[in-house]
Amino acid sequence: MAHVDPSGKAFPTLLNDCILRAARGEPTDFVPVWIMRQAGRYLPEFRELRSKHPFFEICETPDLACQVTLMPIKRFDLDAAIIFSDILIIPQALGMEVLMSGKGPEFPDPLKQDENLEDRLDFNVVIENRLSHAYKAISITRHALEGRCPLIGFSGAPWTLMCYMIEGGGSKTMSKAKKWLYQEPGKSRQLLDLLAEKVTDHLVSQVKSGAQLVQIFESNAEYLTLDLFREFALPQILKICSNFKNRLQALGIDKNSVPVIVFAKGGHYAMDDLTKAENSIDIIGLDWTMDPLSVRQKTNKCLQGNLDPCALYTNSLELTEKTRQMLNRFGTQNYIANLGHGIYPDADFDRVKTFIDNVHSISRQMNSSK
Amino acid sequence: MAHVDPSGKAFPTLLNDCILRAARGEPTDFVPVWIMRQAGRYLPEFRELRSKHPFFEICETPDLACQVTLMPIKRFDLDAAIIFSDILIIPQALGMEVLMSGKGPEFPDPLKQDENLEDRLDFNVVIENRLSHAYKAISITRHALEGRCPLIGFSGAPWTLMCYMIEGGGSKTMSKAKKWLYQEPGKSRQLLDLLAEKVTDHLVSQVKSGAQLVQIFESNAEYLTLDLFREFALPQILKICSNFKNRLQALGIDKNSVPVIVFAKGGHYAMDDLTKAENSIDIIGLDWTMDPLSVRQKTNKCLQGNLDPCALYTNSLELTEKTRQMLNRFGTQNYIANLGHGIYPDADFDRVKTFIDNVHSISRQMNSSK
Repeated sequence: MAHVDPSGKAFPTLLNDCILRAARGEPTDFVPVWIMRQAGRYLPEFRELRSKHPFFEICETPDLACQVTLMPIKRFDLDAAIIFSDILIIPQALGMEVLMSGKGPEFPDPLKQDENLEDRLDFNVVIENRLSHAYKAISITRHALEGRCPLIGFSGAPWTLMCYMIEGGGSKTMSKAKKWLYQEPGKSRQLLDLLAEKVTDHLVSQVKSGAQLVQIFESNAEYLTLDLFREFALPQILKICSNFKNRLQALGIDKNSVPVIVFAKGGHYAMDDLTKAENSIDIIGLDWTMDPLSVRQKTNKCLQGNLDPCALYTNSLELTEKTRQMLNRFGTQNYIANLGHGIYPDADFDRVKTFIDNVHSISRQMNSSK
Repeated sequence: MAHVDPSGKAFPTLLNDCILRAARGEPTDFVPVWIMRQAGRYLPEFRELRSKHPFFEICETPDLACQVTLMPIKRFDLDAAIIFSDILIIPQALGMEVLMSGKGPEFPDPLKQDENLEDRLDFNVVIENRLSHAYKAISITRHALEGRCPLIGFSGAPWTLMCYMIEGGGSKTMSKAKKWLYQEPGKSRQLLDLLAEKVTDHLVSQVKSGAQLVQIFESNAEYLTLDLFREFALPQILKICSNFKNRLQALGIDKNSVPVIVFAKGGHYAMDDLTKAENSIDIIGLDWTMDPLSVRQKTNKCLQGNLDPCALYTNSLELTEKTRQMLNRFGTQNYIANLGHGIYPDADFDRVKTFIDNVHSISRQMNSSK
């Protein structure tokens, strides 16, 4: 990882490297834990700030993004922070308008099959310049964390971004985006290649400015078949991971020092393929429908996940029991605890604290009783 | 199955029993095929009729329901008809209002956690009387089919119905309904038990009036974990199947003559459990994300599925290739071809014809070259 920010100032010494150790397969005293969307609407302090600032204004204002990123870190004993940002800043950087309503993101003018991609998208955009605010946010946040825990950067995977850019909003089937794959495989590949290139740039720039791990969200894997995933999604993910690592190495950053998490939501069918991707994917994220034991049988890779986000609705006693079950199924090594999906806005933050503290205390107990 | 309608009039002789033979594990010359939502919006004649009649008026008018059910049968060489109806007629029968907008069903007054179920739902409704129009539709449709192919009846599974009754409309997470499972397990069970009872009544009445197979749609399996599925969904499905068969037997209808299809969409995690349910589930439906080979390894049961509905967007040549691939993966015996999800409104009916005809011709070739 980078040890100095782009201005040359040294980052603070890392005081808790547990998640990096787990990612590298090194022994850990306890299981590290973070929560997808941990800086989100379930936090009253976030809702208050959000009532004053539009969503993308927060993303684009480094001080605000930093402030939001730190909110859950101040409340909970988390083992990683994740920069406040959004996967849709890549389509924005390519020239598309994205609005954030209460119902989720909306593209007023989504891509249409009969349009030339060159007419709609800025193929030549320099991501490092266009999204400089995002990288500034990462640098100041890593300083502000004072070494308390590592900072995660992230990006959407190309297929997932393509879905948003074509559907324009929510869809139960992603049938418009899938229609491209079936009817316009060439144009789909052109779009996916472009996205893969810009996603790689984005991930590299995040690491240069201070991110210590990165996660790639293939949130829309659930709509694909294994055949489509192998043709249109997986090759792009693997290309991103491998180019990302090579480019870090070329920048003088040890490529093994920045682990890559791939989270393919609904990608149960892809576990054989993902576990076999030996050198590029370091950590496989599991959604809440996956059986940890069956994936453990396939790989020694570090796994991440997968408590049902709705389990946070239950009482403290039941939640403790479910957390224990999860730890028993994953084991305490090569493992990063998380939910199996982003936390929902109506989650109770007392339960979040219970979950995080239980992951630590139960995994410590399990380790000490070995 | 029933051989006479409730008035005592004999049903026409069945001329194509291929799907029943496949369901019972008997050899078939070709693979039978039907399509979920085959009587739906992709058909111009349906859209025309629908422009004149509200959705539930069609469900409640036996002649209209019959007319719609026959629409795809007149166009295509299908091996089964499925009665035009909706899974939400059960919540309606229990006293809930359901509106059908362009965006799908909507409950203006969904169930709330702090309400007594007894205050909201008619526990004592006699389904056979309340939904008599649905059974009349089945009787006249089986006559109108003139034995061309069997008629399928269906119902939603309790968990899936519970989701609609609580969420009130579409949801990306079903978090309100899942909150009940975590916070109100007793009340959830009370609701699921009630639904299981009424669903069983509904299935039995459909068979008494002429349905020759039945399908249970657990369309919202995808939101559950394996633990939740085992606690709240599977036991209800198994209870329904077993009570359904026992009640048929008590009515003098051979319980093995009416196969039960269970389609748990997104239920990849439940395949071990479903395949082990030896005596109650006859056919397991697979969604498009499932690998047929991996399920074949688990069971000799009849399988159903699972072409990606979006594969109908591709050209005729590609579609033929994908159909051949599907048949190679499933094999030609103990198998009912279908999509892996209901057909989408923008599907091209020429492709539907190509798909159906190819299932027949390719499977005949495969059988004859053995």
